Amino acid sequence: MLTLYYAKGTVALASHLALQEAGANYQAIEIDFAAAGQRSADYLAVNPKGRVPALICEHGTLTETPAILAYIAQTFADAELAPLNDPFAFAEAQAFNCYLCATVHVAHAHGGRGARWVEANDEVALAAMKAKVPQTMSECFALIEDDMLRGPWVLGDRFSICDLYLFTITRWLQNDGVAVADFPKVAAHFAAVAQRPASGAVLPLHDR
Amino acid sequence: MLTLYYAKGTVALASHLALQEAGANYQAIEIDFAAAGQRSADYLAVNPKGRVPALICEHGTLTETPAILAYIAQTFADAELAPLNDPFAFAEAQAFNCYLCATVHVAHAHGGRGARWVEANDEVALAAMKAKVPQTMSECFALIEDDMLRGPWVLGDRFSICDLYLFTITRWLQNDGVAVADFPKVAAHFAAVAQRPASGAVLPLHDR
Repeated sequence: MLTLYYAKGTVALASHLALQEAGANYQAIEIDFAAAGQRSADYLAVNPKGRVPALICEHGTLTETPAILAYIAQTFADAELAPLNDPFAFAEAQAFNCYLCATVHVAHAHGGRGARWVEANDEVALAAMKAKVPQTMSECFALIEDDMLRGPWVLGDRFSICDLYLFTITRWLQNDGVAVADFPKVAAHFAAVAQRPASGAVLPLHDR
Repeated sequence: MLTLYYAKGTVALASHLALQEAGANYQAIEIDFAAAGQRSADYLAVNPKGRVPALICEHGTLTETPAILAYIAQTFADAELAPLNDPFAFAEAQAFNCYLCATVHVAHAHGGRGARWVEANDEVALAAMKAKVPQTMSECFALIEDDMLRGPWVLGDRFSICDLYLFTITRWLQNDGVAVADFPKVAAHFAAVAQRPASGAVLPLHDR
């Protein structure tokens, strides 16, 4: 059985949804970020990075959302969650997920996690970072809307792990000061993923 | 034939090295960042993100280093640049590359590209970001040294795309105020990648 460590409001939702979509046999264990559970000795033994998600597999522990999503797609191939037999199409899916991971998630993190990149007591710099989040997130989602999201799903007609990842980050937009309605394709995509049975099963565990 | 767009001093080096290691038939086209070539209309038509690398393939354009590296490994399988037949091992390689992409590269970028996350004329915030780079890069490389780099290569006995990516980012340490000698396994790894024939062919094109 697979074990997913997750926390509410985090990117771990994407991996949780993927396990559910795949029909995997898994358990999900919540880490309480409000109690700094990700910095506990027990959890650091699971993931020295002190982040979620972490996926405990038969042969070891995986981290990093794009890697976990691709792993779930590959090991539950019958669920058809990625274009596994076409290296170029698979790379396109990976590129989309990497953009979310390294650019969009990072832009968002400057709102609440700015102390990763400046001193934690530098309130002026933290405020400067936070102030730009609506702009950076809007720019990212404009690129997604105009150049990346083919519709109805990210990769076009086929549903994939990319949709679960985009859905997860789209959930953050309102708190980032961005109206999802400004991006009609993204808004329709968000509603479509929310209506899937897997989302109905998993989302209540992630609501705060 | 594949076409790689790259710029000196950038992460595009990793993809360039991978093409060379793979024995690919490719051309490499330099974009002059000093002349803001990545923001030219011609280049934005290639990659709307205005970044490098971009790899032009038969069926379209790929971006994002982890995706490009995995694509090269998959399409030049004889070069054995990734553990393609073991989904867990492949995911571990992907997780390592994602860590470099979303955490280490991002930490580095706060030194010279801070205007991505605060107003470009906010010199106080930019200086605050830049000041923390030696600390964040040291912390990242301590984790790589202690928990990730198995030795002699990232994945242990087998050379892979992960080594090309780590080598590329290790090259940035000195300018980031971090002594590679503080991380003996990383330093030995860096020297070993530098001595490979592919590195000898590609590195002169990336020196400034």
